[in-house]
Amino acid sequence: MTIRLQAGGVRLYEQIYEHIKNEIRAGKLLAGERLPSTRSLAEYLQVARSTVDYAYGQLLDEGYIEASPCRGYFVCPIEELMQLEGAGEKAFSGVRTEDKENGGVGKQAGEAEPSDQGVDGGSFVCDFSPHEIDMSGFPFGVWKKITKNILTDANSDLFSRGEPQGDKELRLTISRYLHSSRGVNCHPEQIVVGAGNDYLLLLLEKLLGRQVRIAMENPTYLRSFRIFKSFSYQVVTVDADENGMRAGQLEKEKVTAVYCMPSHQFPSGTVMPIGRRIELLRWAAKGADRYIIEDDYDSEFRYHGKPIPALQANDEHGKVIYLGSFSKAIAPAIRVSFMVLPEALLEKYRRELFFYSCTVSRIDQSILNEFIRDGYFERHLNRMRKIYRAKHELLLEELRPFKEKFAVTGENAGLHLLLTAKGTVKEEELITAAAAAGVKVYGLSGSMAETLDQKRKAAPATVLMGFGALKHEQIREGIRRLKEVWLV
Amino acid sequence: MTIRLQAGGVRLYEQIYEHIKNEIRAGKLLAGERLPSTRSLAEYLQVARSTVDYAYGQLLDEGYIEASPCRGYFVCPIEELMQLEGAGEKAFSGVRTEDKENGGVGKQAGEAEPSDQGVDGGSFVCDFSPHEIDMSGFPFGVWKKITKNILTDANSDLFSRGEPQGDKELRLTISRYLHSSRGVNCHPEQIVVGAGNDYLLLLLEKLLGRQVRIAMENPTYLRSFRIFKSFSYQVVTVDADENGMRAGQLEKEKVTAVYCMPSHQFPSGTVMPIGRRIELLRWAAKGADRYIIEDDYDSEFRYHGKPIPALQANDEHGKVIYLGSFSKAIAPAIRVSFMVLPEALLEKYRRELFFYSCTVSRIDQSILNEFIRDGYFERHLNRMRKIYRAKHELLLEELRPFKEKFAVTGENAGLHLLLTAKGTVKEEELITAAAAAGVKVYGLSGSMAETLDQKRKAAPATVLMGFGALKHEQIREGIRRLKEVWLV
Repeated sequence: MTIRLQAGGVRLYEQIYEHIKNEIRAGKLLAGERLPSTRSLAEYLQVARSTVDYAYGQLLDEGYIEASPCRGYFVCPIEELMQLEGAGEKAFSGVRTEDKENGGVGKQAGEAEPSDQGVDGGSFVCDFSPHEIDMSGFPFGVWKKITKNILTDANSDLFSRGEPQGDKELRLTISRYLHSSRGVNCHPEQIVVGAGNDYLLLLLEKLLGRQVRIAMENPTYLRSFRIFKSFSYQVVTVDADENGMRAGQLEKEKVTAVYCMPSHQFPSGTVMPIGRRIELLRWAAKGADRYIIEDDYDSEFRYHGKPIPALQANDEHGKVIYLGSFSKAIAPAIRVSFMVLPEALLEKYRRELFFYSCTVSRIDQSILNEFIRDGYFERHLNRMRKIYRAKHELLLEELRPFKEKFAVTGENAGLHLLLTAKGTVKEEELITAAAAAGVKVYGLSGSMAETLDQKRKAAPATVLMGFGALKHEQIREGIRRLKEVWLV
Repeated sequence: MTIRLQAGGVRLYEQIYEHIKNEIRAGKLLAGERLPSTRSLAEYLQVARSTVDYAYGQLLDEGYIEASPCRGYFVCPIEELMQLEGAGEKAFSGVRTEDKENGGVGKQAGEAEPSDQGVDGGSFVCDFSPHEIDMSGFPFGVWKKITKNILTDANSDLFSRGEPQGDKELRLTISRYLHSSRGVNCHPEQIVVGAGNDYLLLLLEKLLGRQVRIAMENPTYLRSFRIFKSFSYQVVTVDADENGMRAGQLEKEKVTAVYCMPSHQFPSGTVMPIGRRIELLRWAAKGADRYIIEDDYDSEFRYHGKPIPALQANDEHGKVIYLGSFSKAIAPAIRVSFMVLPEALLEKYRRELFFYSCTVSRIDQSILNEFIRDGYFERHLNRMRKIYRAKHELLLEELRPFKEKFAVTGENAGLHLLLTAKGTVKEEELITAAAAAGVKVYGLSGSMAETLDQKRKAAPATVLMGFGALKHEQIREGIRRLKEVWLV
């Protein structure tokens, strides 16, 4: 390894860190390759050993390398790294109340629902909620430090109202992040920051007008379905196959808007391939009033294959409204979502909605901006990706004995898997049996836009098994119990 | 082009900018017309070329002119200009835009708009904005301390999503505060916490339904007017006398909702007496679908007489939707508002809107909760009341010499006074004369729901004079200057 260190300017450890990171990204250092020991690299470069330690520490944090006790440092596999570049966005939430409606089986995409834990989760040994996230990896220390610094610097500016679309610095940071991680092309001017997707959809309602027929997949993210229903919208559910929504149906259904999650559909986990994406975009390009709402709710956690760019990245006609959030990637409490408006809608927003003030405080915007801009977000994502991958693999492994009776899908990304029964057992029977054994699983029908959908009733029983917030031993224990009731 | 530049006061580039902007708005410079080159204009005006560059840059930024490479600067088409209102980074704040509509006189109720200061305020020696608040008295130290403690205690709970209506502790604290300070009777269960009134009104739209005819006073809080217009609502403006809205007109106008500010109407400062309140409540009680939205936007700052309880305090039939916010009493950045729903609407909310998640982060909710619960809020209010009372009395005192030519009203509460000319001078003349003296005042017409309202056009000129953010010496200097131009 040759590193040319330069005096002055960038700190030494950073030069070392940058050099190695770039070598790995460029594929010059390959997965599994061993790095020189910190001692030998320090000697070679004639720097203090602590300098190299620091650089390696950073690389470890960001997931570029891993440490093997007594053996040294090794380069991580390349696919993982590609995902790292992305960082991300998003997510949503669902609501306790839905549990009630759907006989305790429906819970919606997105965020942790702490109130659940106390009520439903409390009585379960293991709750395979697809919506909880693991907060144990959250860098509280960093968040506190940033908050403290921001409040220390506090000129009263931060306590005054900011721009309606959100502070320029944050929008710039988000646009950069979106470009590098999701391939999204946008100016900061196109971004509207808001306190949650619900609020942004409320604004969108005003932009898209009142007479909207909107298409959604089914099953889908039920919260969004309900929000559209609370508008004057006519919601049409269209069939989905293993590639996602069937674009051919859109013309027939006379819809003007489409809501979809091309990178990782909830709850099916389907990734929409490029061909289907182009069909969608073509459909949209055919009408001036046609738009696609892309909800990129949890693109950050992907375990296999290359990162999937956003649909917006392929949009050449200003037809995609990109929706993102930090609820899943950081924490549900970070009530910051954003949308990227295509030009035509941006103009309308500025003409007709300019007086709606931003719903996120400037202090929160500043904290988030620093968190992303200074690299903490990327590091956090890398750490979480490792944590979730380990849980994901454990769950897959534990589910092996189930493969005779169940098909496992959705295994490339996200924080949940789907188990579909091969036999004639009913969804409710699975859920009830699990509950009797102290385990909570979630029926796919809880994500059905129309719960009385006849076709679905006939479909094989499918349950969602989330692992985000579970500890390894909880996963093992939960599966052990499920074996006893499902595999008898 | 003839521009008369004045030494002192407004900066040169701004005079040039203002002049050209006004010529374009007035239609004296037409779309497509070429402006003189910066070089020739600079020579002609005998100013540095950079001064003209700066002025043109501003005009470009705001979309009044466009640059054509190698050809020069051209006036943009006027229709585009109409659309641009509200667009452009600078024009974002609802406020600036209104300035344009109303010839620089309109600024909206409620919150401070810091971005203005840089643009408009910067050129004024004294800006009597009715919307700015004094942040110098804000207990940053306490806020920081509470934030730090909360983050230190941080169990990850605070980073997870809370209840849709807002955390119970905060709702309890708010309900207690409302009861003791405003006479509002409510359970914490009736409170919905949200990130700003705009958001809460968006939820209300769903609760009140689509076919709403809503009555507002005129002049009124224009932001709310615009929000209702952005709904499907039919907005009816009804006459107001010195007691506020005339309840008798409501029946005739066939409205189902009323928006009002009984404790301190913006901008008139009118306090609705109990007789009129009862008329309003009686009107509401006559129809199951009738509701009164009470916006209690700045009830905290009252200098004479007893505190005025909220209208909600007299509501025996569940007809008042109480809206409150901490933007004015704490800081605009504290994006926490709340509404108190009467039982019938609460039921509907829980049935139909339960899935909308809270837009305020739990951390912010916790900070605010402690701030109020531990008495800091009350202390802060007491301190601010003293600070504002001193400014208020100073302004009243300074305005004494004006009493021959002007009537002063709105002197019991709030952060602004109204000056109504006894003669035939026009509002615009007052504003222009003040501006020439480096003083910014705000015309009442800037709060008119219908700017073309004929009756109002005939009404005597009235300007708003806010004092919230001004220092004592600024008030004195501003009034000294106004004397010179208004009392000659």
